[in-house]
Amino acid sequence: MFSKVLVANRGEIAVRIIRSLKELGIKSVAIYSTADQESLHVQLADEAVCVGTARPQDSYLNMKNILAAAVGTGAQAIHPGFGFLSENSRFVEMCEDCGITFIGPRSETIDLMGNKANARTQMQKSGVPVIPGSTGFLKDAEEAEKVAKKVGFPVLLKAAAGGGGKGIRRVDDEGSLTAAYQEASREAASAFGDGRMYLEKIMNNVKHIEVQVFCDQQGNAVYFPERDCSVQRGKQKMIEESPCSLVTEQKRQELGEIALRAATAIDYLNTGTIEFLMDQDQHFYFMEMNTRIQVEHTVTEMVTGIDLVKAQVKVAAGEALPFKQSEIKLQGAAIECRINAEDPSKNFFPSTGKVDYLYVPVGNLGMRMDTALYAGCQISPFYDSMIAKLIAQGPNRREAIEKVKRLLDEMVISGITTNQKFYLDLLEDPTFKEGTVTTEYVEQTFLPDWKRRDSHAAV
Amino acid sequence: MFSKVLVANRGEIAVRIIRSLKELGIKSVAIYSTADQESLHVQLADEAVCVGTARPQDSYLNMKNILAAAVGTGAQAIHPGFGFLSENSRFVEMCEDCGITFIGPRSETIDLMGNKANARTQMQKSGVPVIPGSTGFLKDAEEAEKVAKKVGFPVLLKAAAGGGGKGIRRVDDEGSLTAAYQEASREAASAFGDGRMYLEKIMNNVKHIEVQVFCDQQGNAVYFPERDCSVQRGKQKMIEESPCSLVTEQKRQELGEIALRAATAIDYLNTGTIEFLMDQDQHFYFMEMNTRIQVEHTVTEMVTGIDLVKAQVKVAAGEALPFKQSEIKLQGAAIECRINAEDPSKNFFPSTGKVDYLYVPVGNLGMRMDTALYAGCQISPFYDSMIAKLIAQGPNRREAIEKVKRLLDEMVISGITTNQKFYLDLLEDPTFKEGTVTTEYVEQTFLPDWKRRDSHAAV
Repeated sequence: MFSKVLVANRGEIAVRIIRSLKELGIKSVAIYSTADQESLHVQLADEAVCVGTARPQDSYLNMKNILAAAVGTGAQAIHPGFGFLSENSRFVEMCEDCGITFIGPRSETIDLMGNKANARTQMQKSGVPVIPGSTGFLKDAEEAEKVAKKVGFPVLLKAAAGGGGKGIRRVDDEGSLTAAYQEASREAASAFGDGRMYLEKIMNNVKHIEVQVFCDQQGNAVYFPERDCSVQRGKQKMIEESPCSLVTEQKRQELGEIALRAATAIDYLNTGTIEFLMDQDQHFYFMEMNTRIQVEHTVTEMVTGIDLVKAQVKVAAGEALPFKQSEIKLQGAAIECRINAEDPSKNFFPSTGKVDYLYVPVGNLGMRMDTALYAGCQISPFYDSMIAKLIAQGPNRREAIEKVKRLLDEMVISGITTNQKFYLDLLEDPTFKEGTVTTEYVEQTFLPDWKRRDSHAAV
Repeated sequence: MFSKVLVANRGEIAVRIIRSLKELGIKSVAIYSTADQESLHVQLADEAVCVGTARPQDSYLNMKNILAAAVGTGAQAIHPGFGFLSENSRFVEMCEDCGITFIGPRSETIDLMGNKANARTQMQKSGVPVIPGSTGFLKDAEEAEKVAKKVGFPVLLKAAAGGGGKGIRRVDDEGSLTAAYQEASREAASAFGDGRMYLEKIMNNVKHIEVQVFCDQQGNAVYFPERDCSVQRGKQKMIEESPCSLVTEQKRQELGEIALRAATAIDYLNTGTIEFLMDQDQHFYFMEMNTRIQVEHTVTEMVTGIDLVKAQVKVAAGEALPFKQSEIKLQGAAIECRINAEDPSKNFFPSTGKVDYLYVPVGNLGMRMDTALYAGCQISPFYDSMIAKLIAQGPNRREAIEKVKRLLDEMVISGITTNQKFYLDLLEDPTFKEGTVTTEYVEQTFLPDWKRRDSHAAV
C-alpha cells in the first residue's frame, strides 16, 4: 500500500479524499494555488505544496508543477479527484513516466472514452444500446444529413473530441444542417485541434440514469445501483439520487450487467460511470462514460455503506476489490443537493466572499455534508461555485427527502448567497415528489414557474 | 399518529428527538429553563415554553409546569429523553391523568425495574442469570452476612430503591458488614423513604454489555446487537461500541433471546435496555434495566441504520414496530465518544463558558455528531457536562476507531475545555485496541498511567 498520496484537487473533493487517506493510515499531500492557501484541504493534509497562482491553468492544471510536488514530497500516487486533470490522458502518461501511480483508469481508456464518437462505436461493439445517431465519425455534412433524416430531427451535432459545450449545435430541420455542421466543425478544430463530428438524436422526456462500475487488476468487476441525476439546470446536475425510484430490481440488474459488459470490454480499471438516457419505456441509451470519481459518488456511498475513494486507492495499489457484487446492497435511498455559492433570484449569479457564520446540522442518522467550508473561509471567484454537497439517506425515498429538507432548513451559511433555500421549493414540486422529473424539467417547467410564482425574477 | 409532541428534555437529546419529529412531520414543543432560552433545542422546535428557572428541580423536573406546557400547546404526547423525568413513574401517571401519551414503557414497568431488588427477583423468575447475591430484600444484617459468605467477599450492599450512588456500601470482609448494612440502610431510608437493602457480589474483570429491546402493543418484540460500554470512569460511560468484538454471533443471539425473554415476561412496552456484566468466560449476569432511550442508542442506530427515536414515537402512537428481527442486521461496527465540557488534566473538572468557535468535521461516510452546540452558545454550570456525542461507523472495529480518531483530531470546540484530546490517548491504548477493556480498566490502569506519563497530573 502507498505510504503517501498527493491529492491533485481542491475544495470539498480534496478534503473528502484526504479524509479517506487518513483513515487508511496514508500520509496526504495537498496542492494549492495562491488563492487557496487558507483552504481546508491545505489545513487537513499532512503536507501542502503551492503549485501556482490562482488561475487553474497556472496551478490545478499545471501538470509539471504538480508532478514536481509529488516527486519532491515522495508521494507514490496521485488522486486527481474530478475536473481539473482527472480525465487528462497526457497527465496519466506523465505520472507513469515519473513512476507515480495515477489513481484511476489507464491513459488509453481515458483517451478512448474521451473521444465521444469512439466511445459510441466501442459501446455499440459491446452490444450497449446508444442514442440513435451516426456510427463513428461523420465524413461530411452530407452524411450528417442522411443520418439526421434517418433518426429524425431535432438532432445534436457534436465534436468528437468535445467537452465544455464547444463544437455543439442543435439542428431542428434539414435546411439549417449544412451550415451548422461547418460552423461546429470549425469551432471544434480551433478548440480541440480536431474538427471531426458525430451526430445524435435529441431525445425528449428522458431521465439521466448512470451506473458506476469498479474493476480491479485481478479481473473482478462490479456495478453499483443506478443514480438518477435528472434534476439539472442547463447541463449542470443539481440533485442526485440513488436508486432511481422508477427502476425495478430486475431492470437494475439488467442495466448493471450492460454497464459491466461495456467496462470489461475496454478492460476498464478502477472506477468509472456510464451515463445513460432512460426513456418512458425504460429503455436505456448510452451517452458517455466518465473515467473518474464523480461529484455524486456520495449518494452511492450513503446507500451502500461503501467508501468508494478508499476502494480507488486500494485498487490502484494493486489490491483486489474489497467488496463482491453480492455485498453491494441497497440500504434505502439517498439524495444529494449540490450547494452552490450563487443567487437563484439573480439567475444563479455566482456569489463570493467570506463565510461569516456556519451552522451545520450534523446530528441524527443518515446525514452527510461534504464541504471545505469553515466559519471564516473565503469563497474565491476563481473556481467552481459548488461549495458543499448535502446528502441524506433514509429507509425510503420519501424519508430521505424529508431528511434533506430538514437539513436545508437548519443549515446556516452566512456572508455569501447560496441556492440552499431554492431546493426547499424544488423538493416540494409535485413532479419531483413523484420521481418523474426528466432532464429538461427544471429548466423548461419548474424554473419559469418558480420565477413567476415567487417574484424571484432576475433583478 | 400524533400531530404535536412535547420534548421534556434539553441539550443534544432534545435536539436529536426534535429532528426525528420533524422528519416524521410532527410538530415539536420544546421546554426550557431560564438558563436555556438561547439553546439550540429551543431554536429548532416549532414552539417552546419556559417551565422554570435554571435549577433542574424548578424546570426540567417540574412535572406540573411541564404538563401545563403540554396541555397548553395541545401536545398529544411527551418524549422524556433520558435523565430528568424519563424513569419517573409518578410523572407517567400524571401524563395519563392528563390524557397525554408518555413515550416510553408503562408506569408499572418503570416501578418494577426502578426497584433494583425487585428487578433482580423478576429476572431470576424469567430465568435470566443475575449477579450472585441475595434474593429479594434482605431481612437484616444477619441475612446479609449469610449471603455474603456464600457468594464470597467483596460484596456491594445496595438500597433497593437506590440511585445516584446513595445507600451503597462496598464490604470487603465479614467484620465490617453489620455496621455498613446499618449505615447504608439508614441512608437509604432518609434518601428514598425506603431502607430495604439487597446484596451483590463484586465481580472483577468483567465487561459492561447491554442489550436494547423494543416491544410494541401488538406483541412484537425484537432485540438489537449488544453494546460494549466497558470504557468508564467511575460509573460514567465514556466510550460505547456496538457490537462487542469479543461476542460471537451465536452468543449474540443467545444474549438477545435472554433479553427478549426478560422483556416479554414483564410485558415491556417501547424500548429499554438490559445491562449485563460479562465475565471472561462470556457468562452474562443481569445488572439492571434502563426503561428509557439511552445516551448510547446512537451506536446501535449507526450500526443497524434504524432510527430508534422514530420507532419510539410510532410504537407509542399504537403502530406496530416498523422492523422485524430479521431486518436488524449488523453493518460493521460503530463507536461513540462522549464529549464532555471538562478538563482531564484537572481531574475532569467541569468547564463552562461560551463556545467561541466550532468546527465539526462533518464530511465522508459513517460519521455523526449529536450535539446542541453552535458557535456562540453558552455551556452553563447547571446541567450535565456532556455536550456532544461523536460517533463513527465503519466496516469493522478497526476502521471505526480510525474514523473516530480522525474526527477527534479535526474537531475544534474553542472557548471551553473538553475531553476531546484525551480520547486520542485512550484510543491508542493497547488494551483498548485489543477490545479487552473491563469496567475498572480506565480508572485503575489507564488513568494512573496517563497522569504519570504525560504529566497530566491535577494542578
